[in-house]
Amino acid sequence: MRIALAQINPTVGDLAGNSALIRRGIELAEQGGARLAVFPELAICGYPPEDLLLKDHFVRDCEEAVRRLAADVGDDLVAIVGCPLWEGGLAYNGAAVLSGGSVQALYRKIRLPNYAVFDEDRYFASGDRVLVLQLPEGRVAVNICEDIWNAGGPSEEAALGGGAGLIVNISMSPYHFGKGPARENMLAERARDSGAYVVYLNGVGGQDELIFDGQSLVFDPRGVLRARLAAFAEEVQFVDVDLEEAAEVQGRAEAPARWPVDVVELELAQPPSPDPDRGPAPADPPPPLERMAELYAALQLGVRDYAQKNGFRHVVLGLSGGIDSALTALIAVDALGPERVTGVSMPSRFTSGGTRSDARLLAERNGIDFREIPIEDAFTAYLKMLSPHFSGTQTGVAEENLQARIRGNLLMALSNKFGWLVLTTGNKSEMATGYATLYGDMAGGYAVIKDVPKTIVYQLAEYRNKLEEGREPIPLSTITRPPSAELRADQRDQDSLPPYEILDQIVEAYVVLDESIEEIVARGLPRADVEQVVTLIDRNEYKRRQAPPGPRVTSKAFGKDRRLPITNRYRG
Amino acid sequence: MRIALAQINPTVGDLAGNSALIRRGIELAEQGGARLAVFPELAICGYPPEDLLLKDHFVRDCEEAVRRLAADVGDDLVAIVGCPLWEGGLAYNGAAVLSGGSVQALYRKIRLPNYAVFDEDRYFASGDRVLVLQLPEGRVAVNICEDIWNAGGPSEEAALGGGAGLIVNISMSPYHFGKGPARENMLAERARDSGAYVVYLNGVGGQDELIFDGQSLVFDPRGVLRARLAAFAEEVQFVDVDLEEAAEVQGRAEAPARWPVDVVELELAQPPSPDPDRGPAPADPPPPLERMAELYAALQLGVRDYAQKNGFRHVVLGLSGGIDSALTALIAVDALGPERVTGVSMPSRFTSGGTRSDARLLAERNGIDFREIPIEDAFTAYLKMLSPHFSGTQTGVAEENLQARIRGNLLMALSNKFGWLVLTTGNKSEMATGYATLYGDMAGGYAVIKDVPKTIVYQLAEYRNKLEEGREPIPLSTITRPPSAELRADQRDQDSLPPYEILDQIVEAYVVLDESIEEIVARGLPRADVEQVVTLIDRNEYKRRQAPPGPRVTSKAFGKDRRLPITNRYRG
Repeated sequence: MRIALAQINPTVGDLAGNSALIRRGIELAEQGGARLAVFPELAICGYPPEDLLLKDHFVRDCEEAVRRLAADVGDDLVAIVGCPLWEGGLAYNGAAVLSGGSVQALYRKIRLPNYAVFDEDRYFASGDRVLVLQLPEGRVAVNICEDIWNAGGPSEEAALGGGAGLIVNISMSPYHFGKGPARENMLAERARDSGAYVVYLNGVGGQDELIFDGQSLVFDPRGVLRARLAAFAEEVQFVDVDLEEAAEVQGRAEAPARWPVDVVELELAQPPSPDPDRGPAPADPPPPLERMAELYAALQLGVRDYAQKNGFRHVVLGLSGGIDSALTALIAVDALGPERVTGVSMPSRFTSGGTRSDARLLAERNGIDFREIPIEDAFTAYLKMLSPHFSGTQTGVAEENLQARIRGNLLMALSNKFGWLVLTTGNKSEMATGYATLYGDMAGGYAVIKDVPKTIVYQLAEYRNKLEEGREPIPLSTITRPPSAELRADQRDQDSLPPYEILDQIVEAYVVLDESIEEIVARGLPRADVEQVVTLIDRNEYKRRQAPPGPRVTSKAFGKDRRLPITNRYRG
Repeated sequence: MRIALAQINPTVGDLAGNSALIRRGIELAEQGGARLAVFPELAICGYPPEDLLLKDHFVRDCEEAVRRLAADVGDDLVAIVGCPLWEGGLAYNGAAVLSGGSVQALYRKIRLPNYAVFDEDRYFASGDRVLVLQLPEGRVAVNICEDIWNAGGPSEEAALGGGAGLIVNISMSPYHFGKGPARENMLAERARDSGAYVVYLNGVGGQDELIFDGQSLVFDPRGVLRARLAAFAEEVQFVDVDLEEAAEVQGRAEAPARWPVDVVELELAQPPSPDPDRGPAPADPPPPLERMAELYAALQLGVRDYAQKNGFRHVVLGLSGGIDSALTALIAVDALGPERVTGVSMPSRFTSGGTRSDARLLAERNGIDFREIPIEDAFTAYLKMLSPHFSGTQTGVAEENLQARIRGNLLMALSNKFGWLVLTTGNKSEMATGYATLYGDMAGGYAVIKDVPKTIVYQLAEYRNKLEEGREPIPLSTITRPPSAELRADQRDQDSLPPYEILDQIVEAYVVLDESIEEIVARGLPRADVEQVVTLIDRNEYKRRQAPPGPRVTSKAFGKDRRLPITNRYRG
């Protein structure tokens, strides 16, 4: 039996566009002689649609779009398409089974994630029945994302209680760095415990903060990897399975029997013979990406999809000559092409010759449009306007932030004039400690590296330079110069913050792992640094709340992943 | 039996400060001869603590703080204090029953709200047992907020199945305009159906987006209102109840019997006689506030608490001479006193003489510090800096926004220099349609009227002026002048937007009621206006995402109440 895995990239709310993607997948499946065509979770509307799901007309429009798709599915193919469902005043996260011109069965997700970036209890009621399809070739279970993540769930019951030799799990599983191996181990275990094939079909793409990495997987009933689809790219791939093979190994674990099993028999015509020119997948799947390649590809997809899905053809960013803006520029160039990127150097009286020339060098080496707009005139004007109010005060953070905000205004003026998307360049270490100016360098539409700690920024820059040895797309001097905001004379990051090697460990422990001050100190980190950084993180929640979105690439990003109050006196 | 209703104002995360508030309430209760002292939901840590609840050390610190409070409670008093609980790897939204020096019983909230602004499924497991306390005077049930909101819930079971003659419901119930009557009707019905007294103890205060209005209530077993505490202010009030009276009318509805009832007998000493000088509440509660008085008080509390709880002693705002900034200034003056408010007029070449003088007049009439900083110098500098890049383009929104952003920068410079909180002045109609400049007039820490539609802004201004007839704190010309952003010559809001009477109806239907375009048109609103406004609302999600928080005063505000994706192609 041939299965077409349609790892597509839906756009939230674009019912017509997503329908076209699904229709194209169905056509390819038919041409390739597939019996099953599998699409991601909520493929019809994109994931996550968030409060669109509270509009009943939205859910009904999704259902109608799926019915229209069903009309085009022949009686030799079964297509499984994610779709929200509206029944009895409740919404469900559903999978529609399309065949022979109509919707033949519906599955309702049983296990709803409501932690981290997930809010599915806000939108959905839980299904309470397992679905198994009886095909001529054997039995196929259908479930959705979280349903398969824990042992003793709907997958095992469908296989062991319902006799399914194949478990189709449709997902939109948000990416974070290092998630792949855990996911593969989990799915291999599920396949072995169920004695069934597992087809894990994950969508791909960027949606606001979230990145979906694709990397759909097929495991055989012995838990052996049979296919791994592209990372961070759309792909339709064919996989051939033999459900007899599943029957041979079935029944190792106990069937949980928590939910009734519905077995739906589909009357199907014989599909055309599998087309050998269209697959199947190679017996030996290519290895996953190397660490920095994976992270870089995630960020690149984030920029590309945020720009494209929101209708931007061009991006603009400030080039300071530092490593953060250099890396951000490279990611944008790789995502969109150099002709769609403008870099703006905005030197002040505190900008060194080195950073100023590095900014220009970066633009030249990478073929992007370069502008230089010195900010001195505006800075002088502000200082003069404010002098009656500032008289008798010491020069300090107000004057520093003015410079950052002039730069923010200039980029936004270019954005407003030409319809460009402003990319911000702050990293996670800065977002954590508030080492950034609200409405200044934080001004923009998409924050490309906001979830990348500074120590990893260096690794990414080195990774990217190594891809083109000799050319050095990021100037070496940009990488080796001690980081500085250059908002006052001789300023260096390390005057205000602990070294980034220390800082990033504290951020990881406090933000990602929710450790207490005492627990972090017990790791061997200096107490003074821990207390300073924790206080900075807590105090700067108000800044982060007004930050642009950016791609989540760690297991806990600032954003919907971490919902701390601004007004908060807890210290611990 | 005398009950002390301690309607306090906790601060999120301030365990020491909240403990002190609770301890003071316990002292007052003892002095007044009360048997019961009742405090709000999660009183020990403030509500909502959001992701602080994911730190297990935070929950343990809360439990420890409550144990310390318990040590000070005598054996003649029972104090009921909201506290998160940590048991078996799960957190609960709990109520601790303190008496005789220790924690005598714990209740775990059964019904967890997870809609609108609520995310309790993210944090808590549901309790599954009803708690009834056996006191010498009779039986008292304890439950929490959502537990009482629907018929057939834990309250009736405690009364009808568990014999409680008094239901104590501790709440932190977020305010919205017009919620009061619905809440009172619900509680009266619950009291009648249970044949029991209902003590509804609601906290008070502002916490980021949320306002808690207090207005704690007592209903007798016939559903007659016996006490209503202060709106938007702290208060400790004594109420005397006779549980015999409850026994007489008990048993009208069916007991649901869904959860086991735990009856915990407390050994108590006789409390001192009720002190007649300390209450009880007057037999006839004063009426609730009039509509605009209620709304104004909510906004005032929002400003006061956001400033105080975040450590700001002074606020600054731009005074344009328009009605939004005038109203915002008045609210700030009433919240903090005129000596803590600075108003800044920042005229440009497009500012009319009328608005410029109105700004000054408003400041003078209300005794606030006034500055005038013309923005022409900075505007000229920007235009010159950008001229090589803007040459050949038409003057438009880029040049308009520059002016708004210069003003934003000036206010932020004052904020950075002097530690002042910047208040923004945009209303809900503007937030909806994006008729505001990101990093310009949207720059600030707290957006006082962001949930107030423009038509209501006028009503609030008139309400406030009527309070001081003759003095006219908001100049009449500010109210009567057609609204304009004054970012180009002869600009008026109505050139870009439908009349506010129409606009606000569309915003209400689309944002608050989630109606479709067709449903809104069917209300009789012009299709062209509906389509324009809906498109503007959808397109401006990115701006709202970077807006400062402000008080939620309607049943659906922009913020955690409404979670729409930025990347979203759905139109309907």
